[in-house]
Amino acid sequence: MATDLDIARAAKLLPIQEIASRAGIPAEALEPYGRYKAKIGLDFLRAQEGNRQGALVLVTGINPTAAGEGKTTTTVGLGDALNRIGTRAMIALREPSLGPCFGVKGGATGGGYAQVLPMEEINLHFTGDFHAITAANNLLAAMIDNHIYWGNELGIDARRISWRRAIDMNDRALRSINAALGGVPNGFPREDGFDISVASEVMAVFCLSKDLADLQDRLGRIIVAQSRDGRSITARDLKADGAMAALLRDALSPNLVQTLEGSPALVHGGPFANIAHGCNSVMATRLALQLADVVVTEAGFGADLGAEKFLDIKCRSAGLAPSACVVVATVRALKLHGGVAKSALGTEDVAAVTRGIANLARHVQNMQKFGLPVVVALNKFTTDTDAEVAAVRAAMAKLGTEAILCTHWADGAAGAEELAHAVKRIIAEGRAKFEPLYNDHLSLTGKIETVAREIYHAAGVSIPPPVAAKLKKFEEAGFGHVPVCIAKTQYSFSADPTLMGAPEGHILPLREVRLSAGAGFVVAIAGDVMTMPGLPRRPAAEAIGLDAAGRIEGLF
Amino acid sequence: MATDLDIARAAKLLPIQEIASRAGIPAEALEPYGRYKAKIGLDFLRAQEGNRQGALVLVTGINPTAAGEGKTTTTVGLGDALNRIGTRAMIALREPSLGPCFGVKGGATGGGYAQVLPMEEINLHFTGDFHAITAANNLLAAMIDNHIYWGNELGIDARRISWRRAIDMNDRALRSINAALGGVPNGFPREDGFDISVASEVMAVFCLSKDLADLQDRLGRIIVAQSRDGRSITARDLKADGAMAALLRDALSPNLVQTLEGSPALVHGGPFANIAHGCNSVMATRLALQLADVVVTEAGFGADLGAEKFLDIKCRSAGLAPSACVVVATVRALKLHGGVAKSALGTEDVAAVTRGIANLARHVQNMQKFGLPVVVALNKFTTDTDAEVAAVRAAMAKLGTEAILCTHWADGAAGAEELAHAVKRIIAEGRAKFEPLYNDHLSLTGKIETVAREIYHAAGVSIPPPVAAKLKKFEEAGFGHVPVCIAKTQYSFSADPTLMGAPEGHILPLREVRLSAGAGFVVAIAGDVMTMPGLPRRPAAEAIGLDAAGRIEGLF
Repeated sequence: MATDLDIARAAKLLPIQEIASRAGIPAEALEPYGRYKAKIGLDFLRAQEGNRQGALVLVTGINPTAAGEGKTTTTVGLGDALNRIGTRAMIALREPSLGPCFGVKGGATGGGYAQVLPMEEINLHFTGDFHAITAANNLLAAMIDNHIYWGNELGIDARRISWRRAIDMNDRALRSINAALGGVPNGFPREDGFDISVASEVMAVFCLSKDLADLQDRLGRIIVAQSRDGRSITARDLKADGAMAALLRDALSPNLVQTLEGSPALVHGGPFANIAHGCNSVMATRLALQLADVVVTEAGFGADLGAEKFLDIKCRSAGLAPSACVVVATVRALKLHGGVAKSALGTEDVAAVTRGIANLARHVQNMQKFGLPVVVALNKFTTDTDAEVAAVRAAMAKLGTEAILCTHWADGAAGAEELAHAVKRIIAEGRAKFEPLYNDHLSLTGKIETVAREIYHAAGVSIPPPVAAKLKKFEEAGFGHVPVCIAKTQYSFSADPTLMGAPEGHILPLREVRLSAGAGFVVAIAGDVMTMPGLPRRPAAEAIGLDAAGRIEGLF
Repeated sequence: MATDLDIARAAKLLPIQEIASRAGIPAEALEPYGRYKAKIGLDFLRAQEGNRQGALVLVTGINPTAAGEGKTTTTVGLGDALNRIGTRAMIALREPSLGPCFGVKGGATGGGYAQVLPMEEINLHFTGDFHAITAANNLLAAMIDNHIYWGNELGIDARRISWRRAIDMNDRALRSINAALGGVPNGFPREDGFDISVASEVMAVFCLSKDLADLQDRLGRIIVAQSRDGRSITARDLKADGAMAALLRDALSPNLVQTLEGSPALVHGGPFANIAHGCNSVMATRLALQLADVVVTEAGFGADLGAEKFLDIKCRSAGLAPSACVVVATVRALKLHGGVAKSALGTEDVAAVTRGIANLARHVQNMQKFGLPVVVALNKFTTDTDAEVAAVRAAMAKLGTEAILCTHWADGAAGAEELAHAVKRIIAEGRAKFEPLYNDHLSLTGKIETVAREIYHAAGVSIPPPVAAKLKKFEEAGFGHVPVCIAKTQYSFSADPTLMGAPEGHILPLREVRLSAGAGFVVAIAGDVMTMPGLPRRPAAEAIGLDAAGRIEGLF
């Protein structure tokens, strides 16, 4: 069977200028990066302000399982299918991180016959955006320690530095370090650590900024530490915001690439959907809406993490209102949520599918709480039986939702035509009445409790006293109005990754809260979730290499 | 007065395709990065193998001082001037590092009217090569700790891991760290540290590789640690070499840009000239020699560090033989070497200049030891007096060398015409008889002593017993034949940065030796030299930012 890489290599790509032209972008607006990637100039973006807006479609999914659901694949397949049936569609995706790429997950450019290309380049350095984000993060870190080294005029309390360093790599050894060891020339020793770059506040700021000025302003507002006398020290206090903005300037231009079927795709920004908000950049989404009739975008992980943040953080901040929501599932993944072992996925088991549907159903109902019409995309595997599929269809019908079998992985756009028609119909009917889940004026604790209750179906939130005190301090400092970004495991509605299906009555155990004053949200970390992943026993990196012709092999 | 950035911004750049065409590179061979930067495809490089070779001219300098000498500026000015007088010339430079750019030094794209452009982009991320090098370095580091975490099959001795992490930033707080703290999920605590990326072995490997296959092979040979039973553990043992090569694949294509006067310039690779070998990539130099009649290239810091390594490491490894050597100096810098205070540089002081000439004279004589004809480029400042210049000319004449006053900083190519004619004449006369300073079969200690005696004029080398034991081990392991890469301060012939002029009788105090088995040399660190710089009290970063039009300001 052809691998994703085989299919990608066999593809005949169009020059990026031609893809741009299809999307209504003139060649003068492009900064090409090779022949098949381009950044779109910020002048062009400014000129589109005030254009009419297309319809926004969010693709999200059930809680991910080891079986794989194909959320990116469906985003690409749906975009291609919309173009195939004559709707002018664009796709807006996140950029992949090197961490998962060398770890366990592989790339993030879709799969089968629903991919964005050139896959090797997008999965590795692409146009360098993440490297720019990492550099900006670490310049700020270096300037903090350097400030202390040269006399600490601002009175930074080295015990209260909240800014961490970042690297776009899965590297558990850097989670917790002692830095500045080795004596006088190396500075004042202190505890520190690295997050993966996609979990950094710079990534979140990058993705939420509306333009360059907003970017620099948000960077300046980032709070890095407290002083001995209790003041918040910002990146602006350290005079780091200008150089950080300079490092990010070119990166802020959205990246244009193409799908296997020649649809234009903007791939830009890529925060994780746990500690960060998990959606592509506001700049790319807005541009796509100004150029296309329908924009298909994706939020990370399951709908409890990615979609909730897409709606409560990104849409709220950028004034976006989706017209429809696609929830992706597979029969195999539902079986896992229904308690079947991975080895038994090939055997028909309608009862297990029915049990697992509870997970899907809750996500569908959650999306409906935001006022969004939902359609379920069921990605077909050859082992799925008619009875299993019928069980999903019947359960969804009870929720007023259609479940549509999709085969874009094997068939490309043709395999998602029915889904495209359904989405187009929903948009035409104008049924969406989008509202965020909670209001700005609710307390931070109230916001966390609302998400836990309404989305996770938790019985409550446990907040250790020091965490509660920190939340209170954030409110006193004037940050009570911001939304919350809850970081927890993606594998369960709860904070316990082993609780599959649709658990009830669990308690969300808050561990830590962090203020992202530049991004404009409070991160609330629950359970054991890590802001720096580790590599598995056999990292994907071991199989990656060059063949005799210098082509990259082993990427998936 | 116009700043370098003002001049750069006012320039009217030509499309990079036109610059390529001037250099004999067809548009199909280019991978454009924006409009004014391009990578040159490796297929095109392969097709040039066997072409006739142009003449190679090395630009080097006296020991750098706070007054600035203008080595890159002279490299650019000479290249432009050669083209101006009708010689088909190309320039081959190193890429700048973000560390010095945000620290004290500013950019590295020349100055005044002798610059390579676009300066903001070259100085910041350029085409992402350094980010790729950093990522490859740190992937290997993550795979080492991950290997230990999952059972340590290879028996790595955590106390004997020589591989360090890297970051392209001046960050003293990362020089020495304790990593993997925080308990079981984070691995086995150990001592570690970061070097600046330009000092990493991956950078050296990248710059010395002849092609992709050589790159992957060298990466695989990198020794990262010793096992408990004394075996050397390589990147290949960890199966990291393939993924590292994949990360570096696109970066290995040389970058083409242009000077202010439209000369083609390859800017590729950028190791520091202390811990690494300090010259641009072999791939770029060889390509330039295949395309141009004269290639002007530069080695870092003073000739004692950069030129010695260029000749003993790069030329030896790549089979290159320079035809001429240009040593850059200024009257102001010679005054500093002559003991004048920085505040008194504006006052005529022939005696001080004459004392300072000792530094220049020794560098000139050192280059003559390699069989190279030398010409001195004296970069003119308005405060230089005729008597001071005459003193330099007279001293150089005694060494059989011409000292030529240059004004390319103010006048562009026109200001380096006389220098260009002199260089052209030397090439035409075919006077160069290049020989490396020492033979491969000399012992490692013998090589270090030879450089110390012949180039630094040291009375001897002090080698602590553990360092001597390590050198012996390297020889026993079969690495006795490689050249040595001596890391010491750039400010003096000695290891003491305060000993200016031409000190005699000093002792070179070796502190540490490291085997770079992939790059193919032994690094010998002398004195206090750091492999990770720090930021100054007022980092250049503080002044960098964006203006209202989104243009970068404050870069110099």
